[in-house]
Amino acid sequence: MSKKYVYLFSEGDASMRNLLGGKGANLAEMTKLGLPVPQGFTISTEACTKYYEDGKTIDDAIVAEIYEAIAKTEEIAGKKFGDAENPFLVSVRSGARASMPGMMDTILNLGLNDVAVEAVAKKTNNPRFAYDSYRRFIQMFSDVVMGIEKSKFEEILDAAKEAKGVKLDTELNAEDLKNIVANYKVLYKKEMGVEFPQDAKEQLMEAVKAVFRSWDNPRAIVYRRLNDIPGSWGTAVNVQAMVFGNMGDDCGTGVAFTRDPATGEKKLYGEYLMNAQGEDVVAGIRTPQPISSLHETMPAVYDQFVEIATTLENHYADMQDMEFTIEGGKLYMLQTRNGKRTAPAALKIAVDLVAEGKLTKEQAILKVEPQQLDSLLHPQFEAKALKAAKPVAKGLPASPGAASGKVYFTAEDAMAAKERGEKIVLCRQETSPEDIEGMHVSEGILTARGGRTSHAAVVARGMGTCCVAGCGEVVINEEKKTMLLPDGRVLGEGDPISLDGGTGNVYAENIPTVEAAITGDFEQVMKWADEIRTLKVRTNADTPKDAETALHFGAEGVGLCRTEHMFFDEDRIAAMREMIVSKTVDQRKAALAKLLPMQRADFAGIYKAMKGLPVTIRFLDPPLHEFLPTAEEDIRALANEMVIPYDELVNTIESLHEFNPMMGHRGCRLAVTYPEIAEMQTRAVIEAAIQVKQECGYDIVPEIMIPLVGEKKELKYCKDVVVKTANEVMEEKGVKLDFHVGTMIEIPRAAITADEIAEEAEFFSFGTNDLTQMTFGFSRDDAGKFLDEYYGKKIYESDPFQKLDQDGVGKLVKMAAELGKKTRPNIKLGICGEHGGDPSTVIFCHNIGLNYVSCSPFRVPIARLAAAHAVVLAKN
Amino acid sequence: MSKKYVYLFSEGDASMRNLLGGKGANLAEMTKLGLPVPQGFTISTEACTKYYEDGKTIDDAIVAEIYEAIAKTEEIAGKKFGDAENPFLVSVRSGARASMPGMMDTILNLGLNDVAVEAVAKKTNNPRFAYDSYRRFIQMFSDVVMGIEKSKFEEILDAAKEAKGVKLDTELNAEDLKNIVANYKVLYKKEMGVEFPQDAKEQLMEAVKAVFRSWDNPRAIVYRRLNDIPGSWGTAVNVQAMVFGNMGDDCGTGVAFTRDPATGEKKLYGEYLMNAQGEDVVAGIRTPQPISSLHETMPAVYDQFVEIATTLENHYADMQDMEFTIEGGKLYMLQTRNGKRTAPAALKIAVDLVAEGKLTKEQAILKVEPQQLDSLLHPQFEAKALKAAKPVAKGLPASPGAASGKVYFTAEDAMAAKERGEKIVLCRQETSPEDIEGMHVSEGILTARGGRTSHAAVVARGMGTCCVAGCGEVVINEEKKTMLLPDGRVLGEGDPISLDGGTGNVYAENIPTVEAAITGDFEQVMKWADEIRTLKVRTNADTPKDAETALHFGAEGVGLCRTEHMFFDEDRIAAMREMIVSKTVDQRKAALAKLLPMQRADFAGIYKAMKGLPVTIRFLDPPLHEFLPTAEEDIRALANEMVIPYDELVNTIESLHEFNPMMGHRGCRLAVTYPEIAEMQTRAVIEAAIQVKQECGYDIVPEIMIPLVGEKKELKYCKDVVVKTANEVMEEKGVKLDFHVGTMIEIPRAAITADEIAEEAEFFSFGTNDLTQMTFGFSRDDAGKFLDEYYGKKIYESDPFQKLDQDGVGKLVKMAAELGKKTRPNIKLGICGEHGGDPSTVIFCHNIGLNYVSCSPFRVPIARLAAAHAVVLAKN
Repeated sequence: MSKKYVYLFSEGDASMRNLLGGKGANLAEMTKLGLPVPQGFTISTEACTKYYEDGKTIDDAIVAEIYEAIAKTEEIAGKKFGDAENPFLVSVRSGARASMPGMMDTILNLGLNDVAVEAVAKKTNNPRFAYDSYRRFIQMFSDVVMGIEKSKFEEILDAAKEAKGVKLDTELNAEDLKNIVANYKVLYKKEMGVEFPQDAKEQLMEAVKAVFRSWDNPRAIVYRRLNDIPGSWGTAVNVQAMVFGNMGDDCGTGVAFTRDPATGEKKLYGEYLMNAQGEDVVAGIRTPQPISSLHETMPAVYDQFVEIATTLENHYADMQDMEFTIEGGKLYMLQTRNGKRTAPAALKIAVDLVAEGKLTKEQAILKVEPQQLDSLLHPQFEAKALKAAKPVAKGLPASPGAASGKVYFTAEDAMAAKERGEKIVLCRQETSPEDIEGMHVSEGILTARGGRTSHAAVVARGMGTCCVAGCGEVVINEEKKTMLLPDGRVLGEGDPISLDGGTGNVYAENIPTVEAAITGDFEQVMKWADEIRTLKVRTNADTPKDAETALHFGAEGVGLCRTEHMFFDEDRIAAMREMIVSKTVDQRKAALAKLLPMQRADFAGIYKAMKGLPVTIRFLDPPLHEFLPTAEEDIRALANEMVIPYDELVNTIESLHEFNPMMGHRGCRLAVTYPEIAEMQTRAVIEAAIQVKQECGYDIVPEIMIPLVGEKKELKYCKDVVVKTANEVMEEKGVKLDFHVGTMIEIPRAAITADEIAEEAEFFSFGTNDLTQMTFGFSRDDAGKFLDEYYGKKIYESDPFQKLDQDGVGKLVKMAAELGKKTRPNIKLGICGEHGGDPSTVIFCHNIGLNYVSCSPFRVPIARLAAAHAVVLAKN
Repeated sequence: MSKKYVYLFSEGDASMRNLLGGKGANLAEMTKLGLPVPQGFTISTEACTKYYEDGKTIDDAIVAEIYEAIAKTEEIAGKKFGDAENPFLVSVRSGARASMPGMMDTILNLGLNDVAVEAVAKKTNNPRFAYDSYRRFIQMFSDVVMGIEKSKFEEILDAAKEAKGVKLDTELNAEDLKNIVANYKVLYKKEMGVEFPQDAKEQLMEAVKAVFRSWDNPRAIVYRRLNDIPGSWGTAVNVQAMVFGNMGDDCGTGVAFTRDPATGEKKLYGEYLMNAQGEDVVAGIRTPQPISSLHETMPAVYDQFVEIATTLENHYADMQDMEFTIEGGKLYMLQTRNGKRTAPAALKIAVDLVAEGKLTKEQAILKVEPQQLDSLLHPQFEAKALKAAKPVAKGLPASPGAASGKVYFTAEDAMAAKERGEKIVLCRQETSPEDIEGMHVSEGILTARGGRTSHAAVVARGMGTCCVAGCGEVVINEEKKTMLLPDGRVLGEGDPISLDGGTGNVYAENIPTVEAAITGDFEQVMKWADEIRTLKVRTNADTPKDAETALHFGAEGVGLCRTEHMFFDEDRIAAMREMIVSKTVDQRKAALAKLLPMQRADFAGIYKAMKGLPVTIRFLDPPLHEFLPTAEEDIRALANEMVIPYDELVNTIESLHEFNPMMGHRGCRLAVTYPEIAEMQTRAVIEAAIQVKQECGYDIVPEIMIPLVGEKKELKYCKDVVVKTANEVMEEKGVKLDFHVGTMIEIPRAAITADEIAEEAEFFSFGTNDLTQMTFGFSRDDAGKFLDEYYGKKIYESDPFQKLDQDGVGKLVKMAAELGKKTRPNIKLGICGEHGGDPSTVIFCHNIGLNYVSCSPFRVPIARLAAAHAVVLAKN
């Protein structure tokens, strides 16, 4: 038997969502439940994918199936397409597996033609209604299906109103509308070269193709990318008998939720309009009534609706978002779906549904999208104050939260202002590692250049600091300390500014903010998540402050402590630079000796903050030239400071230049060439652990992570240095402690040879940022130039730096995990790239058997919830 | 039973080379053949690797085995260590699996002590000989085994001669030498804190450890890297009873080859010295006699030696390199091995041995190292003229061959000189793609900066042009057009210069050169190789000239034609730049239209040169900024030329800047963002094929190769553009032809997802240069800064850019080949990285089932021979 592509509503159910789309599956389910649904049929998502496979044509067999479904639906409705007495009219809507609001406009009243319009006029005794419907249908069909510009139709309508000397559409009578229909048809013929199709089946087939095409319009592609929906899914098409909410005072239409989507409160929530069509509710010409008032208007219908709403919520065990129409006093359900909700509502509904005995905690946690929690974890503007504020520019929403403070243009100025007790928003052309301290003291960061993966964005997200990046609308002059706004105003140092990292909006005023907290429903859901999940969640933290924040958010250890950020502090960079320009090992050791006490204090601070939880410390990673100045002035200053000739210093800096710094002299390659750096860092790690053990009694088991390893012998070399130094320190101090040495897996070769590397590594931590760069062969800093084109051309559907590329990079990660376990069955496996906080990646990590994910402090709760989702989803 | 680590010569044979090393296995084999070999034993290579595993100690069980072997050997010799009557003396020599000349000095006369020396004096009736031997032994043991500086012993010796008022060692008598021995022992005690060991077993164990240690001395590590010998092999140690060639006039020592190692001529070739030790032959104080004269001196011994030589050559079926000693008129064989030989000798010997019926052609080809052929494929200096010449500087031997011509400092000057009919040597600070044309017209290229993988080196090797790179000893001033030599002389434009690309030598004079040709024995061996091999050999060629050279060298197609080099020509770069700075698609198309006829002519030229053989054309690959000028002056000139504002052009150039160009907007990413480039290139490919088909009758089947693909959809997008354009062209011309579209596999993700990519790709060509960079995560341009350190620390043993890293990158290649075949069983697989001409990589490619390798024209014969080796080795 050949494949079935078209299903009557009576042939489907809710389990067929992948095939029928969300809307179609729910219409079928409501039909099954015996609810009043105008009947129709669904053309499956597989028909859509086949349409694309067949070079954008609909297979003859599918056409035949559609015709058959029409015939059956006509029979159910007792009407016929184009019938002079009882014409059959339908709506045509898209409906994908996942909800994609606004992907394509709905086409209403399909089936109207010169004959049917007269029949409708007669049947409703309302010619004006009939011709207005016909006019709207021609316009919608021409625009949405045929791509004729809407404005050309508007011109005809406007001309008619002008000729008659009226202003509102409603002032046109049936005759006027009849003329307009005639003119519309002339326009259609002029544009398309053929008459407006009178055959309803032809209208339908064109509309179906338009829905299929809309799956790939730019809006849909962007939506899918942002919402993680595969392009291969396709959309279904729903064809449903029309019912009219605008045929008189016993008609109406509305939308309602079974609970408040903003707060989660358990009460019917929604609105309706009498004698109106759906689009009137949206258009806002008339003010809709609250759903509760339907109780007075049509008590029987209201009671029926309340009963249906209760039935649906109980049936789906979730808050429902429903559309309905009342035609001639009779209620029809046009749609139901699990309703979108805010994060607080999602948490409350989940907790309430468990309390009501409708869901288990395992089911309930799935009702909260991990990503949603983000908005609850950062300061937000006071809602009232925000309403009154007006944005002056818009950049990219690079790191969430809200910030309000005074404008400063350099890290130094920001730090000085912080000393004075001010709140700062750091505004830079773009940031560099030298700005770290200034970024740390700021409430928010604004850059004029750079994308969501620029330095500012990445660092800000790591810090949990609000950031608006790449705001090209403003012109920042760091020298003059001015920022030119699009409206011509100029902001100077100390002027008030506010940023919304969730929208990218910039305000030239102070807007008060409120802090985040994990309490109430949030706390309850996180408790359930922790009970369910098996994957541990650690944090990426470079400072005690980060570590404390993460601990507060539930982190179970530090998965990545980057030691290089510590070297940018003003009092350290000098010693660091001295180390770098050293000509001999002894000079280098002398400079490192200055850094040792600082590093030791750094690590001690983090150990204390984590209260004995495991801490993974990554050894120095970036290429050394990142620590050196580039401007002549700064180089001269450094030369003076170090008492070396300017030319010599310039030569040293030039000799460190790299063509591709990402693939240069960095990571463990530094430890191989300058083992004394690894010696100093080991000493700091072990001495700090001994100190904290003695001071606080925590039994620290430091985990030393060697970055950028690509070959077992490379790790062995570094490990030998670490072990030798650690033993020396322990002997000196007379204290024995355990420590582990492992590696980042962030180079393809490391993944491929992970079985060998595991002979030396006690743990692997997947550095998926670099691994993604190397595996794809593009650098994050440069890919921005072409990735948009790739999204537009459907080559990539999501940003591989945000969501782990499971087909490519993920395959390497899985391979490495398996190879690693083969050699060392109890090897500890984690991930510490930015992906560690991405829910889909967390689920992937659970599924391939990693022990933990590590992410920035503000993503810890998200990862905890996603890890719990992973367990529940794996059981389903 | 526990493992055996020590073998008497009588316990081994030639098949045990891996265990006993080459020297040990051959000593055993000669013993087995009944030849006169002083007996002894071999400590196996496994004992060496165990020594390293055990932290540089010799296991007690192995020590016991050695003692046992000593006892047995003493018994055979009828002598005893340290015996007052009949002391046993031995030599100790290293002997790895592969010959590593000069890795460690031999220790002779081990076993001498205060007692034994007297016994020797008595027995030989030659106290002077005995004490001289003892003196030498102490000095050698102290230096080689204990690391005491040789010069300290030389001082004592010199003082003794001065005190006696003599100049030569031979003028010292037994008493003098006895005193010197006493002083040596005092020095030893002072240096080591203990007495010079009198226990022969102790001497032996120290010597064995020294041999083991020598496996890892810097000299050995470098030698292994250059000769592709794994560090894991370890060395064996041979302990052999001493025989003396210096005990009187019926004694002597010598070395001989069964054929002339320089020419391959079949005649005994070698030399000897009567009354001498091996080191005397090497030291050159006395002039050795040709081996033929031994016929007169000791006819019986000579006849015996000739018989042994014949036996050995027949036994090994290869030219032998033998060492012998005559003691008291009796001949002893100390070593035999397959002799090293020049490339012409290797070819002649291989051909002769087949003619003599001693080898099959399969065996014979293995007697010629593919890499050796390199020296035969390039012009060389006339031997006599070279002898008279004196190098003035030395750089890196970056591309083989010899060149002689006049100094020019810029590509323009070089081209102008070429017009005048001059021979040019282009001398640059470093080269860039803009120098391509100048490099093309030059006999040789000298750069002051850059390594063996610099632009100059890579391009020169591709062109087969001699190149000396990174010659830091000279100072080149391109502006003043001068080159300062280390001796203070200054060369100017037009001055004579000669380069030796094989040694890196630079000469400030003209040295005549002679051309290469494949004739005679060379031709015969290549014919056999072609009969045996199954792997095809193609060439990388960007010009008809390259293609012709390669065809002459036996190429069976073009595996890689890089289209970008074609755009650097003076008359094209303008159109190219116009294309790059275009603001609209139409502008870009207009500029591309100018490039089209040139590209078409390029391809037509290559098709014609290849006479219908397959040609793979790679589409534009490098980032566009490579084509733009960087100096302000040049940018201004370009702005004028293009009639656009200077600032605008600067902005455009800046916007193309990349942080990591290697991982930037290049390869197929260009075709995705600017499909019109791929359209133009497709048009050129197809139009040229049609033109050549019509003009010459060749049925060209173009192979279009899309570079840098990492995802199937990316290839699909480009392929769609290619197929659509190709069909258009064929329709326009009314000619149908076949063409194939495939891809480079040069990004790890492409290898990992090769099964998916093969759905679109008709062929894979492994771009192992980039694949190596991405898989290791280091860029070729930057890795030079740390790779030396990696070699020194034994982390890498060979340059992964020269020899394919089979453990990592090779694993990816193999995986991709398998995945590709799974999807498309008849997929064509090749390799086109620089590795394609490396013999070990060629063998790897054969073994994993690739269809062809592609390499630079001058490596085609090397690859042909290596491919034949692969077949024979796979059968063994």
